[in-house]
Amino acid sequence: MSSERIIYLPLGGAGEIGMNAYVYGYGKPDQERLILVDLGVTFPDMDGTPGVDLILPDISWLKERRDRLEAIFITHAHEDHVGAIGHFWEQLGAPIYARAFTANIARHKMAEHGHSEQTVKVVTPWPETTQAGPFSVGFLPMSHSIPESSALVIDTPQGRLLHTGDFKLDETPLVGEPFDPAAWADVSKDGVKALICDSTNIFSQHAGRSEATVGPEIERLVGEAKGMVVATTFASNVARVKTLAEAGSRAGRSIVLLGRAMRRMIEAATETGVLKGFPPVVPPEEASSIPRENLMLLVTGSQGERRAASAQLARGKYQGLVMKEGDTFLFSSKTIPGNEKGVIRIMNQFSELGVDVVDDSSGLYHVSGHANGPDLARLQDIVAPQIVVPMHGEHRHLREHVKLAQGKGRKGVLAVNGMMIDLSGNTPTVVDYIETGRTYVDGSVKIGALDGVVRDRIRMALNGHVIITVIMDENDKPLGEPWCETMGLPEKGRSHVPLVDVLEEDLSQFMGRSGDKILRDDDKLEEGLKRVARQSSQSEIGKKPEVTIVVSRLS
Amino acid sequence: MSSERIIYLPLGGAGEIGMNAYVYGYGKPDQERLILVDLGVTFPDMDGTPGVDLILPDISWLKERRDRLEAIFITHAHEDHVGAIGHFWEQLGAPIYARAFTANIARHKMAEHGHSEQTVKVVTPWPETTQAGPFSVGFLPMSHSIPESSALVIDTPQGRLLHTGDFKLDETPLVGEPFDPAAWADVSKDGVKALICDSTNIFSQHAGRSEATVGPEIERLVGEAKGMVVATTFASNVARVKTLAEAGSRAGRSIVLLGRAMRRMIEAATETGVLKGFPPVVPPEEASSIPRENLMLLVTGSQGERRAASAQLARGKYQGLVMKEGDTFLFSSKTIPGNEKGVIRIMNQFSELGVDVVDDSSGLYHVSGHANGPDLARLQDIVAPQIVVPMHGEHRHLREHVKLAQGKGRKGVLAVNGMMIDLSGNTPTVVDYIETGRTYVDGSVKIGALDGVVRDRIRMALNGHVIITVIMDENDKPLGEPWCETMGLPEKGRSHVPLVDVLEEDLSQFMGRSGDKILRDDDKLEEGLKRVARQSSQSEIGKKPEVTIVVSRLS
Repeated sequence: MSSERIIYLPLGGAGEIGMNAYVYGYGKPDQERLILVDLGVTFPDMDGTPGVDLILPDISWLKERRDRLEAIFITHAHEDHVGAIGHFWEQLGAPIYARAFTANIARHKMAEHGHSEQTVKVVTPWPETTQAGPFSVGFLPMSHSIPESSALVIDTPQGRLLHTGDFKLDETPLVGEPFDPAAWADVSKDGVKALICDSTNIFSQHAGRSEATVGPEIERLVGEAKGMVVATTFASNVARVKTLAEAGSRAGRSIVLLGRAMRRMIEAATETGVLKGFPPVVPPEEASSIPRENLMLLVTGSQGERRAASAQLARGKYQGLVMKEGDTFLFSSKTIPGNEKGVIRIMNQFSELGVDVVDDSSGLYHVSGHANGPDLARLQDIVAPQIVVPMHGEHRHLREHVKLAQGKGRKGVLAVNGMMIDLSGNTPTVVDYIETGRTYVDGSVKIGALDGVVRDRIRMALNGHVIITVIMDENDKPLGEPWCETMGLPEKGRSHVPLVDVLEEDLSQFMGRSGDKILRDDDKLEEGLKRVARQSSQSEIGKKPEVTIVVSRLS
Repeated sequence: MSSERIIYLPLGGAGEIGMNAYVYGYGKPDQERLILVDLGVTFPDMDGTPGVDLILPDISWLKERRDRLEAIFITHAHEDHVGAIGHFWEQLGAPIYARAFTANIARHKMAEHGHSEQTVKVVTPWPETTQAGPFSVGFLPMSHSIPESSALVIDTPQGRLLHTGDFKLDETPLVGEPFDPAAWADVSKDGVKALICDSTNIFSQHAGRSEATVGPEIERLVGEAKGMVVATTFASNVARVKTLAEAGSRAGRSIVLLGRAMRRMIEAATETGVLKGFPPVVPPEEASSIPRENLMLLVTGSQGERRAASAQLARGKYQGLVMKEGDTFLFSSKTIPGNEKGVIRIMNQFSELGVDVVDDSSGLYHVSGHANGPDLARLQDIVAPQIVVPMHGEHRHLREHVKLAQGKGRKGVLAVNGMMIDLSGNTPTVVDYIETGRTYVDGSVKIGALDGVVRDRIRMALNGHVIITVIMDENDKPLGEPWCETMGLPEKGRSHVPLVDVLEEDLSQFMGRSGDKILRDDDKLEEGLKRVARQSSQSEIGKKPEVTIVVSRLS
């Protein structure tokens, strides 16, 4: 029995959807050579992360061990798998491996952060493999809602791991390689130690539908539309964008791509040869000279993002184009939980313009990119792994996925971010708990999720902010009265006089009755002023604000 | 032709879901006698209304005309129809009419605001009517997800209006009166001028399902469950609560009601006789002595509300009860858009406890309380109104509902909040636009949505807050250096020294280079300091914070 071991350590994506980052290691304990699979982001929201621009995994553990990191492998080009590479590459420094389309997107990201394109190496799919320390890693094509998504065949001295990346079992994905059961059976035929597997759609009880099923429905819809047709989907869903464009083209419409991501993805897919036969595209500036019934716009913003093309069209105008009565807007997409209000907002704005909005509530115009419950079962049956390690899912998804594995008589392990699993023996065991978390990109700064910065913002948003300044003279006596300013608080409360007047009066009285022991001690003085301000606010306006005290001593 | 007219003026609920408040008037222009139908609330969120406790309609228009207000009629006891009566009654002063169950809930609300219970009059259903100035108003029973929901039969000298309130066409609603097509045909037989109609579910393309359909499914689920079963639904859905309780009871489980609203609703329904035969209930403090496999808890918090019983159970313990491995939690409810993240949060917390969570994704355990598209068409056919006025819906719902009416050869009018419609002639016409909006209950204060208070909170949340104090001596020269404090901003930025140090240095330089013209003028000084602080922050941390300047002059 070797003292070397295989470890699996999710730093992001396990216990959440998004922000994927999975570490694998092989070697003696604490000397394992490491590889990282994916390095993605997740997105902030007003509820929990106001003002934050982007959320990255906390990779402190890996940074401290960068000398042991052999390589980074990116399964596909979705933001939650590749979005953080530019932000972290300097701190990791390992070569990045990806297939052509993914690498094209990744290189743009690296360039935006001033890194050389050479840091991203293009690999061809399995059976080509890349040696990374004790690991040999191959990219096994897998269908998903973006071209060239790949599972990783990770060979270790103690056996083969299959890391699925995101996937669905689509034998007619239109763009990119179909799911190939024979290829999966072939890589699995000598035994697979562990299947590390996407879990997001485990609760969907029917087998997933193919990308090919939406084409005829979209074609019918676009064929029957009278005015201008505008459709949105994730720009990275190149197959869908193509389907939409072809439907427009067949209906005699000129195709216009709107939104930076939309143009960028089609360009990347064309450059790398994964997209062929995309209908001719008209630049936005020429669109206004084409009759609207002969136009189809493909736009960004399927999640109602305020700055995307869809939201700008909903508010009025984008690149000189306006929507109006008789036009149709199609959401060929699903709304990600949390984005409902933004999507509904633009639906209503379109309604006010007289635009007919069609969404996927009928189930006709969108299919998911992830494997449903029965598909996950099918893959398990093909691979027949010794161990199933569910990844990419919230706790409830991982748990259900473990149950699925156990129901088939396999070992399953529920590992969330920070749990280090030893996959070497016959039974997966938790060998360590690593402190993980989130890093916020906030303006140009990276801050830790637990630094308290965002907590303070939330508190100001919920409670308002009172600023109190007092000036103390050379003898530690108040010079004048305390001065109050408020932000985010009602002007008047119960007494029908300005809140700041009430506060200043109460604070002044507090100063008057405070002796030197308080007046000479900044901490005590601040504590007292804060208490008075909060109590006084509570009685006046029924809420306790955040309070900042500035004591200036003229000494 | 009379110079008197019928007017319809939504102050809330038209162009949104929630916050219902509809004015009807009859008389000479600007002298119409008025009635108000419903006076509801809507709920705040972190996105748009952080720190706000409750959102009420802006009833300024009605307050200014309170001498013309004859009465307030409440169709049913949901918060978005009755929630604002306590907040506004003093400003309106008219008698409130409601049926017994609704009145029971309404009176509690009035009492909470110190108003007499006598302000709420209990009426019996149609054919009883209440005279209110030129109006005669009757409550026509209608099925919905709360007992005793009623449409209003509003007779005017120029014809009959039917205001549906919220409804579904349920002939087996289990609690409360079934939909009675014959009664609707009967009130409509002499012609209905206008049908003012709920629109929320117009996009649902199948006929709605009856409340009776969920019982067998719930019974099967509860019957098969092993450990403790906990179920949540809207407490006001008394029929569902009864169905859940009966399923538990039949499975040999003792029923425990948890959460104030749950107990309150069952109490009100029992007191008013609308609920009969509810299984015996065990008080929470006795529950711990009952084996968990013999327990079923019915709890508040179907929307993931942080302080509700469900969320507290998910976090650990509520009233001494804990959930654990082998227990089942059932959401017999749908998630209202915007609440997804809160619901998902508690689902995952339950998953961490080992609790099996069942929701309505299967479509088995919940039915909607609102009429779907085909149901709305059916009601229109029964009533055969001259005019259809869609209400209670977002713009897109109202628009689709107008289309439905027009498709049947009827007149439809799209009236959103603030549009005053004259219903007198053969064609509805817009006769006025009233400024409407929202009123926020914030702590103990009511503030206008446009007062800027909440806008400032959002800005602090997004941008952080810098507080700058400067002291000017008797000669308008700076006494010491400017002083900075920050809240909600990273401690350090680009320069790797504290942000406040960078700001203080830059502000100090600004003070040094500013002449008397600036230093003596508070406005100019503040403007300059603010500009420097924002620019300096932008370069240091990549964001421009909110800035509060306090200039103290020792003069």
